[in-house]
Amino acid sequence: MRVKNYFYPYKIKNMRFHTRKWVKPQDLNPNGTLFGGQLLAWIDEELALYSIVQLENPKVVTKHMSEINFKSSARQGDIVEIGIDVVKFGTTSLVLKCAVRNMMTREIIITIDHTTMVNLGEDGKPKPHGKTKIEFVKDRL
Amino acid sequence: MRVKNYFYPYKIKNMRFHTRKWVKPQDLNPNGTLFGGQLLAWIDEELALYSIVQLENPKVVTKHMSEINFKSSARQGDIVEIGIDVVKFGTTSLVLKCAVRNMMTREIIITIDHTTMVNLGEDGKPKPHGKTKIEFVKDRL
Amino acid sequence: MRVKNYFYPYKIKNMRFHTRKWVKPQDLNPNGTLFGGQLLAWIDEELALYSIVQLENPKVVTKHMSEINFKSSARQGDIVEIGIDVVKFGTTSLVLKCAVRNMMTREIIITIDHTTMVNLGEDGKPKPHGKTKIEFVKDRL
Amino acid sequence: MRVKNYFYPYKIKNMRFHTRKWVKPQDLNPNGTLFGGQLLAWIDEELALYSIVQLENPKVVTKHMSEINFKSSARQGDIVEIGIDVVKFGTTSLVLKCAVRNMMTREIIITIDHTTMVNLGEDGKPKPHGKTKIEFVKDRL
Amino acid sequence: MRVKNYFYPYKIKNMRFHTRKWVKPQDLNPNGTLFGGQLLAWIDEELALYSIVQLENPKVVTKHMSEINFKSSARQGDIVEIGIDVVKFGTTSLVLKCAVRNMMTREIIITIDHTTMVNLGEDGKPKPHGKTKIEFVKDRL
Amino acid sequence: MRVKNYFYPYKIKNMRFHTRKWVKPQDLNPNGTLFGGQLLAWIDEELALYSIVQLENPKVVTKHMSEINFKSSARQGDIVEIGIDVVKFGTTSLVLKCAVRNMMTREIIITIDHTTMVNLGEDGKPKPHGKTKIEFVKDRL
Repeated sequence: MRVKNYFYPYKIKNMRFHTRKWVKPQDLNPNGTLFGGQLLAWIDEELALYSIVQLENPKVVTKHMSEINFKSSARQGDIVEIGIDVVKFGTTSLVLKCAVRNMMTREIIITIDHTTMVNLGEDGKPKPHGKTKIEFVKDRL
Repeated sequence: MRVKNYFYPYKIKNMRFHTRKWVKPQDLNPNGTLFGGQLLAWIDEELALYSIVQLENPKVVTKHMSEINFKSSARQGDIVEIGIDVVKFGTTSLVLKCAVRNMMTREIIITIDHTTMVNLGEDGKPKPHGKTKIEFVKDRL
Repeated sequence: MRVKNYFYPYKIKNMRFHTRKWVKPQDLNPNGTLFGGQLLAWIDEELALYSIVQLENPKVVTKHMSEINFKSSARQGDIVEIGIDVVKFGTTSLVLKCAVRNMMTREIIITIDHTTMVNLGEDGKPKPHGKTKIEFVKDRL
Repeated sequence: MRVKNYFYPYKIKNMRFHTRKWVKPQDLNPNGTLFGGQLLAWIDEELALYSIVQLENPKVVTKHMSEINFKSSARQGDIVEIGIDVVKFGTTSLVLKCAVRNMMTREIIITIDHTTMVNLGEDGKPKPHGKTKIEFVKDRL
Repeated sequence: MRVKNYFYPYKIKNMRFHTRKWVKPQDLNPNGTLFGGQLLAWIDEELALYSIVQLENPKVVTKHMSEINFKSSARQGDIVEIGIDVVKFGTTSLVLKCAVRNMMTREIIITIDHTTMVNLGEDGKPKPHGKTKIEFVKDRL
Repeated sequence: MRVKNYFYPYKIKNMRFHTRKWVKPQDLNPNGTLFGGQLLAWIDEELALYSIVQLENPKVVTKHMSEINFKSSARQGDIVEIGIDVVKFGTTSLVLKCAVRNMMTREIIITIDHTTMVNLGEDGKPKPHGKTKIEFVKDRL
C-alpha cells in the first residue's frame, strides 16, 4: 500500500472522525486527483451536520473559515474521513476545527483551524443557542 | 422537534455509526421525502467503504443483499446516519448488516440483515482475504 | 463484442423493458465497473415510475424489496435496460418484479423477485387504488 | 388530472417510446419547471443509445440537430418519455427524429425532426456502418 | 499544445464570452469526449442567465433553438467558454445567438444562430419586456 | 427587486468577472439558501480555470486559501458571478484574489484575499512557469 510512516500532530489525535467518502470518478479534477472543490463541499456539509446536532437547531450557517492548507491529495479509490472538534462555544456561535485524512495513505489532506458557525432563529438572525459543551446524542436519550 | 420515544431493538444498539448525510433538495423524490434510490446508493457506498477498510483491499464488490424494509422516511433538512456491523467473516466474503436512522426523529429508516461483500483479486476473481475479526484502524498503526 | 450465448430464464422473457441507461464515467465505482448504488437508484426510480403510471397516482412509495442478487456488472459505455413486471395487485399495494440486463453482453445484471409499492392518499396513509390488472396508456385514451 | 384532449400528429403516432424520466427537484430550473438543459441532456443520451444499439458500434457521435421547439414544459413529479424513430440510414450516418411527451398531461414537450448521428471507426473518423433498416434486438439473437 | 491556426468567422469575433467550464470526468461520454448533452445543458443555462440579466426578469424561458452544428469536441481538462450575442429584441422575446469554443485548441465546438427566449409575467404568459438594446450592468448602477 | 444601494470597496472594482451561475434547486442547502459547499466548489473550479489559462499549463493545483468570509447568501433563481484578480506572480506559484457577488441584490457573497495556486510539472512537482504578468488570450493569437 501507499501507507507512509506518519505521526499525526497532537491536535488531530483527539478528534472524532465520522463521515467517510469513497473517491469516485465524479469527484476527480481533470488531472485525476480529488477535486479540491468537492472536498470543500464535503467539509462544509460535515461542519453543518455537526453543528446542527450539537446545537439542536437545523438553521445553522457557516460564517467564517480560517485559512485552508491543502497538504496532500487523494486518488480514485481512496477513502477519506472528515474529523471535527469544538474549539469554543460562543453565545450565538460555535467554533469548530476540522481535518480530513486519507485512510489509504494515513496522510492529512486538509486542516482548518477555526470555522465559525452561527445559530439562527426563525427570523434568520443570530440567536443564542444556550449550549456550553459537547453533548453526545446517546446521553440525550 | 419530531423526536419520538423510540426503543432501538437490540441488534442496532451495538452498531457503529459513521457516515452522516444531510438531506438536501437534490436527495428528494418528487413527493418531497428522501428518494429511496438515493438512500440505497448511500448504503451501498458505506458497505463498500467498510469492507475495503476491514479487508485492506480496494477491490471489493457487493454480491447479495437480503430483503430491505423501508420503515420510515426522512425530510429535507433531516440528518441520517448509516450503521454497519459484521455478521460473519467468510473465506473470500464478508457478511455485513446495516441500519440507517434519522437523527432528528430517532426513527429507523431502513434495515438490511445480510449483505454479502466479496473480496476480489487482481484478476477480478474471488480471493481469500485472510481476515477473521473486526480490526480498528488505530490498532493497526 | 462481448456477447455471450445466454438463455434468459422464463420469468424474464415476458417482461417489458422500457428505460435504458448509458453507463457514463460518473456512474462507475473506483474499480471502473458500474457502481451498485447507482444501479439501485435507477431501479428504484423505474419502480416508482411504473407504479405511478399503473395506479394513476403520483404518491407511491417503495415499502419492501426482496433479496437482491448482483449476477454480473457493466462497464463504461455499456447500455443497460430495466424491465418490470407485475406480480400482484393488492388493495393498497402493487407487487412488482424487476430485472436489469446489459444490452452489450446480453447478461442479467440484477434480479429482484418482489418489490412492494404502496399507494398513498393525500394524508400520506395507504389508500386503496382500485386497480386489478395492467393497463396500457394507449388504451386509456 | 391535468390531462388535456390532445391529438398527436401523425409523425408521433408510430414512434417507439422507451426511456422514461421522473421529474425530480434536481431537474428543475429556478422557476420550478423542468430545466430545458436537463431535457436536452436526456434527449442527447437517448439518441446516442438508440444509435449504438442500431449500428452495433459504441462509437457514435451527434453531428447535427435540426431546430428545436419547446412546445410545453413539465412539473415536479411528472413523468416524461422519450421517443425516437429513424428518418434515414446514410452510409456513415443515421438520421433520427425525436419527441418527448409528458405522460401526465399527454402533451408534447419537444420535437426534433432530424438529428444526424455519425458512426466512427477506431481512428475517430466516419466509417460505413453497413446497416439499412431498423433491427430489433430480439431478432438478432 | 493542441492549438490550431484558426480564424474565427466574423460573427463570433464581436461576441462577449463570459462563463467558462472545466471539462471534468463527470462531463464526459463513455467515449471519453465532452458529452453533448452536458454541453447543451451548459448552453441553455447561459442563455437563461443572459436573458434574465438583460430583461431584468427572472421568469424567462427558452422557446425555440435553430439548428445546432457540433463542429468539434473537447477532452478532459479542456476549458470551454460560452459566448452570447443579441440578434434582436422582440416585444415579449429576445433572440440570441451563441457559440462555444475550446480555449485549449481555439476551435469552435458549437454554434446556434437563433435562440428565442420569451419573457413571462407572473401568470406564466408572454409579457412585453420594454427593452430595445443591450445594457451593461455597470451602467444601470 | 432586492437590489440595495451598495458601494463596492475599491479592491473589487477592478476585478474581471467571468463565470456566472444560476442558483438552481440542487444548489441549495436544506434551509433554502445557496449551499456554501457548492459555492466553494464553484470558486475552486474558477481559480483553477483562471490559473490554467494564465500559466498555459493544465496541471495547476490549489495549495492554500486565506480566510473566507461569508458576507451574504443567495436564493433560488439568483445569479452569482465570480471575479478573480492576480495578486502576485511567484516563480512556481500564482497568487489570486477572488470575490463572488449576487447579480440580483448587488451584494458581495464571499471574498478571499489570497489563494495560492501551484504550477506542476509532468512529475507532479512544482515547476517554474515563466510568467510575470496577466496576459489576455486575444493578445496571444
